[in-house]
This record gives sequence, structure tokens and C-alpha cells, in this order.
Amino acid sequence: MRLCRYNVEFFYNGVTNKMATKHKNAIYAQSGGVTSVINATASGLFTAHKNSENAGIIYAGINGIKGILEENLVDTSSYDADFLAKLKHTPGGFFGSSRYKLPDFDADPTPYERLFEVFAAYDIGYFFYNGGNDSADTCLKIGLAAEQLGYDLQAIHLPKTVDNDLPITDFCPGFGSVAKYIAVTARETALDIASMYATSTKVFVLEVMGRNAGWIAASAGLAKTQNSPAPQIILLPEVPFNRENFITKVQQTIADDGYAVVVASEGIKYSDGTFLSESSQKDAFGHGQLGGVAPKLAAIISEDTGLKNHWAVADYMQRSARHLASQIDVDAAFNSGVAGYEFAREGKTQVMPALIRENTLFGIPNWRIEEASLDKIANVEKKMPLNFISDDDMGITQEAIAYLQPLIEGEAYPPYTNGMPDYLDEKLVAVTKKLPEFKS
Amino acid sequence: MRLCRYNVEFFYNGVTNKMATKHKNAIYAQSGGVTSVINATASGLFTAHKNSENAGIIYAGINGIKGILEENLVDTSSYDADFLAKLKHTPGGFFGSSRYKLPDFDADPTPYERLFEVFAAYDIGYFFYNGGNDSADTCLKIGLAAEQLGYDLQAIHLPKTVDNDLPITDFCPGFGSVAKYIAVTARETALDIASMYATSTKVFVLEVMGRNAGWIAASAGLAKTQNSPAPQIILLPEVPFNRENFITKVQQTIADDGYAVVVASEGIKYSDGTFLSESSQKDAFGHGQLGGVAPKLAAIISEDTGLKNHWAVADYMQRSARHLASQIDVDAAFNSGVAGYEFAREGKTQVMPALIRENTLFGIPNWRIEEASLDKIANVEKKMPLNFISDDDMGITQEAIAYLQPLIEGEAYPPYTNGMPDYLDEKLVAVTKKLPEFKS
Repeated sequence: MRLCRYNVEFFYNGVTNKMATKHKNAIYAQSGGVTSVINATASGLFTAHKNSENAGIIYAGINGIKGILEENLVDTSSYDADFLAKLKHTPGGFFGSSRYKLPDFDADPTPYERLFEVFAAYDIGYFFYNGGNDSADTCLKIGLAAEQLGYDLQAIHLPKTVDNDLPITDFCPGFGSVAKYIAVTARETALDIASMYATSTKVFVLEVMGRNAGWIAASAGLAKTQNSPAPQIILLPEVPFNRENFITKVQQTIADDGYAVVVASEGIKYSDGTFLSESSQKDAFGHGQLGGVAPKLAAIISEDTGLKNHWAVADYMQRSARHLASQIDVDAAFNSGVAGYEFAREGKTQVMPALIRENTLFGIPNWRIEEASLDKIANVEKKMPLNFISDDDMGITQEAIAYLQPLIEGEAYPPYTNGMPDYLDEKLVAVTKKLPEFKS
Repeated sequence: MRLCRYNVEFFYNGVTNKMATKHKNAIYAQSGGVTSVINATASGLFTAHKNSENAGIIYAGINGIKGILEENLVDTSSYDADFLAKLKHTPGGFFGSSRYKLPDFDADPTPYERLFEVFAAYDIGYFFYNGGNDSADTCLKIGLAAEQLGYDLQAIHLPKTVDNDLPITDFCPGFGSVAKYIAVTARETALDIASMYATSTKVFVLEVMGRNAGWIAASAGLAKTQNSPAPQIILLPEVPFNRENFITKVQQTIADDGYAVVVASEGIKYSDGTFLSESSQKDAFGHGQLGGVAPKLAAIISEDTGLKNHWAVADYMQRSARHLASQIDVDAAFNSGVAGYEFAREGKTQVMPALIRENTLFGIPNWRIEEASLDKIANVEKKMPLNFISDDDMGITQEAIAYLQPLIEGEAYPPYTNGMPDYLDEKLVAVTKKLPEFKS
């Protein structure tokens, strides 16, 4: 581990690694909502493994932990450097992810017993779980269950989430790229509406992800320039939504700038805790799912001001936009995979690689990677600090910009063929099963 | 004009141009919904002008024709090569656009009289109007009014529209870039849902632009690969929407692939001509604007199948996404500006540069630029040909792919500073007015 100029680096030196005494196999699984760089973490893990001596096989669960339970596994041994390079720049979860919640061991040990049955059948000594808060909890539970059952397993959590809500780590791999995409999108759509407002649309509303934490919405604040004030309004889930204050701000912005760009987190709520999007999920017949915060805000603007508006909902677009990934984020994702592998080889368990920011004398940030204990991460949600939110509750501060800007540095473009990104396009082939069937 | 390998080229050789006998000034204005490459056309026009002998001043109307009527004009003389390069890669309409419809000359000559008053005051001999169908009509009207009033003016229309619905030209500058953005977005979001569907979201709906023509939705069909069948469903405004057929197709797709990506044009209609989005524009209180085709389709899917779904609305994101412009499209936009300037210098009027595709022996398309008469373009809307639409009415054919694929070739990335695109960030400074005020 060492500091590097404006970069995230983690050197694994497996060939001369004195700790490399184990020869056991490993298993890797992706979990929860995917990102544009989760595969870069897998690529880092497999690359470190490939470069290490005495390494066993790394298997991957097809569709996350569901694949492990059902013994749907891929043997990754055949992946060469070209394949791993392509994996690094392919968005989505190449092995399939899952939203699967393990019960508590004491409440229902059945899935744990099955997991360890599979682990034993494949001589697994290392479990790498690539996910967010919930997944950190799952990874910890499996690590603790192994201790309880006397199974020799090192459980390593690899961080991944666009929501940026994991504690301890400076940022989460996945977030830097979505922040870049949303900042660039906010800048581009601001240029669009700035050229239209004189005779047409006055307000543009962009809905972004973030159920409980406003990190993604906040990143749109990076779009402001010397002569472009947009986005003038950023709505965060950390702040209760007040219709009157919002409309006053819209009208003031129109008076000042002629147009307004509003970036809203999907998770904004009224002061009584109701989500804005919930209240629009019933149509005239009392059913259906017309939700979305952006159309709801657009309706409020239309009703209260009559201002012509447009709205967009980024949804999956933002978290899969590998075509505009941040280089820092890709480096963080890849090196988290490398670090996770080294932690395992060093005998560690129930830990996660965390990014620790250190500013150089010139104010340029570097990150080193350290282990963080999973019991400090599981189920803990990191919200935006209050000093990142501006006094009017509808924008971000210089402190927020100082935190966010370095995360969008660098453009990690994928290669293109025939005008399209050259993403991995392989079918997964599962190994032949050894065990009786299990219904997860 | 000559053919080039997989490129759009138009050579302007102003310095030795024997036709360059006029010394009059020119005026340029942007019109209608903007694109990510409309400024590239302005850059081409100004570049050709800069390289030409005996050239006058080019003024630009601030906020389109509104700026000409109100004498809000920018003198572009100070724009150097660096500025023009930056203009070429900046999305939105740098000079401001407008949605302004000129009345017929016979019905109300007032705005025409004012236009020619401004033209005379600034010694304008060339009028360049950068827009779509409606704007071609406006440009033609102004050209004809000049003849009627005995004013010596050449009116040249420069094509611009993401909708790709102009006749004669092979494609419209602006369309290639939005096609690339939507194709890449469809591919990326397909990779996302492909990794989620085993335990979570089964259907993803992406709404794209296109009121009357399905060109943009069709371009999502370029996202299909050998192993990725998505988007499996493309809904076009050319085909009446049938709920039962749609749901049957969704269910069949889920049975075949496990997940479905639906790309829907904002303009899809029921067989009675009602827009799908219209029917969702009333909320439970009978007011508001909750519209959007994607949430409407998502509601239909939820109601009829219960399948978990996600939806996105690209709106302004798609037409301002200069960060992923197609190189072919940028070349077409820039060279249309160059060609328009040459047409003017050659004494032509009431024409538009049109892109004519010719395939080489190797099947590689080249485009040359020819003039097209505005009376064949004004108010004519080019829809998708029927042989571009698949038999089930919910996809595109090989003919469509052969047409669309060359338009997304090449990645024309803007330069970046501090992680953000280095777009123009200048304030427009209007010239001092010479004429009495006019309220447009």
C-alpha cells in the first residue's frame, strides 16, 4: 500500500507473498443493485489471484448467493488477461446479482448448512461478497456462522454501491461513476434548457437514485460553472420536502436566471415521512404505479406556477453508464478487488477494503486502502453530513464540492466496435453439480 | 464535394472561390428543440466564413428569430479557431433557440417588415436558419417574402433535429448522436437488468423522444448482440398500441429470456389516436401532469402481470448528451454548416444541404452533401418506412439496422477539465441597438 498522485493504488505482490500458505479455493458472488464498475472489482480480484502463487480456483456464484445455494457456479480459471480487461470495463453484474436476505443463523440455520455443504464440496477457504450495507451484514453472518460451525473460512466483503452510504470508506466504488454521469448530465441538460427558456420550457426536473442518502443528487452540484448557475435546486432525502418553500425557490430562480434545473433524489419525503413518489402511485382509478418523484414535482410546478416544464428519470441509466465512468472510481473498484484478495491471503476475515483519503501538500487527494471490520459496516448507513447541505436546504456547500469533485476525475472509456461499446457478451457456463438439489 | 471513406466531408475552398463577389453580412439563428450538435453546424458555418475572402460579418440572433425581431444580435467576428473548436463540441443552442411561428405573409406582414428592417440596418444578404421541418417552412417564407418585397436575400436552411424526420436528406444532424446515446443506454441498462432479474426486476421500460416518428426508439435495436436479446420490445408511434398484444409479448419474452427491456417512443398512440401519455396526465384529483409513456407502460405491466419493473425517461438527457456524440453525426453537422455557407456564396437561395448516402464497393457508406429545395422539405415529415418495422410490429428489421448502424460510428468525445466536459461557458454580449424597439 502506498500513496500515489491523484490515484487509488493497491499493490498486490502475490508471487513473493510469504503468507501464501493456503491452497484452498475461493468463491465470489455479486449482491444487490449492480453498478457500472462492480465487474472491475471482480476483475481486480481475479487478476490478483492469477498473479499469486499456490492459488486455487476461484468460483463465482451465478446470480449471487442464490447461485451458491443452488450450486450454480462458474469456474473462472479460464479467464485470461484479455477477458479480465474486458470484464473490467463491462457494466452490470457479469455473474448475475441477487437480492436475497439470509435469515439469522439461530432462527434458521438451513441456508447456512447448505452454504457450508457447497463450500466443503468445492474446498472453499475464501468467500468474497461484493455488495452494499445489507451484503456486508450477510458476509459477516456467514463469517460468524463459519466460526460457530468450525468451518475454516475467511469472509471478505468487497464494497459496491452507487448510493455511497457505506461507513468508514471515503467513498464506495460505483458512486464516483454515477456522480460523474449525473454531474455531466446536469451540465448538458442545463445547456439545453438555457437555450430553450426564452420562448418555451422554464423548468427541468431530473430524478436520480438515492432512497435515504442524497449523495447522487448532491453530485449534480458539480455541474455549476462561472456562467451557468444550474442546477439551482437540489432536493435531498436528508431534508423534509416543503412544497411552499420549493415553489418559492423555483419562482425566485426563474426571476433571477430565467430558467431552473431541479435535481431530485428519488427518496425525498414530506415532513411526515411519506415519500413524494408514494403519493403519486395511485392513478385516477386508485391503482397502478405512476410514481416517480420527477413527474410528481413537475405536476406540483404546473399546478402552483403554470410554468412549462420537462422532466427525466435516470433510473438504471445512471448506474449502468459505463460509457462515462470515472477513472478514479474504476481504479477504486479494481483495487478493492486486489486488496480483498490480499487481505484473504494475509489470513484476515470479516473485513472490507476501505478507501482512506489523504490530501497531499498540493491539495490533491490520494487514497490508500485499509481493512475495516465488518461489524462496523454491516447495516450502518452513511448520510450526507449537515455541513454539505446549503443554508436554504436546496443545494450543496463548498465542503461538499471539495469532497465530491475528486471522485469524478478521469474518463475511463470502454473500447468501441462498430459504434458500440465492446462489452463482454459471453454466456455463463456452470460447472457440473456434485450435490443434491437445493431450493433457495 | 467528394466521397470519403466512412465519413461525411464537404470541402469549402472560400479563398479561391470565384463566386465570392458579394460583401454583404450574414445572420444566423437557431430554431426549435436543440441537439447536442447544433453548435457544430454553427461552428462549420463560421469556420467556412472565416476562411473565405471578402466576407462580411456574421451576426447571430439571441434566442433565434426572436432575437432578430428584437434586434438582440451577437457579432461573431471575434470568434477565433479555439472558440470555434469549443463551440463545435458544446451541446444545446449556444445562441439560444426559439419556438416562434411566423404568420403567413399575407395574413400579417408586420414581422416580415420588421425582419427586413433589421436585415437592411445590418446590411444582411444571407440568412442561415438552423432547424427542423417548421423552421424550413419559416426559412422558405422569409426567402419568398424577400422576393415579394424586392429585398436581395439568400435564405439557407441548415438541418437540425433529433427526430430525423426531414425528407430528402439521408439523416438529420443531431439524430446520429441521439441514436448512439440511446443504443448504448439500451445496451447498458440491458446488462443491468440481466444481472438483476433472477431475484428482482423483470422488466425495464425506457422512454425516448419521437412524437410522430419512431427513429429514436428504433435506434435502440442496435443494442442487440449475439448473446443479449434486449431490447426485445420496441414501441413505435407508427404502430397503434394494443395493450393485449403488448402484454402477450412481455410474457413471451419473460418466458424466453427471463427479463424484458421495452423501449417506447413518447408518441405511441392507441388505435383511436389518443396518446398513451395523455391518458395518464390526470391524477386522482383530475389535474396535474403525471404523464410520460414509461410510467404508463409500467403501470399496465404491473396491473396485467404483476411483474416487478423499473422505468426511465430520457427526455432532455438524450438530446444534450454531447459526451457520447457520434463522430459521423458531428461531421455531418459541421459540414452542413460549411455547405450552407458555400451554397450562399454560390448564389443559391431557399435550399438546404442534404446528406446523400452512397455505399462503397465494400458496403461502407459515404455521404456527399447536395442542395435540396426548401419547398420539398418544409412541413414534410419523414416517418419510418414499413420495411424497417418487424412483423410483430414491436421491433426493427435488418434493413433498419443497415440504415441506422453507420450513423452511430465513431466517438467524438469533448475534452475534459477537472472531470467535467470543457463546454463553452461564455455570456452572450449583444451589439448596441440601432432601431426602435419591437415587441415580438
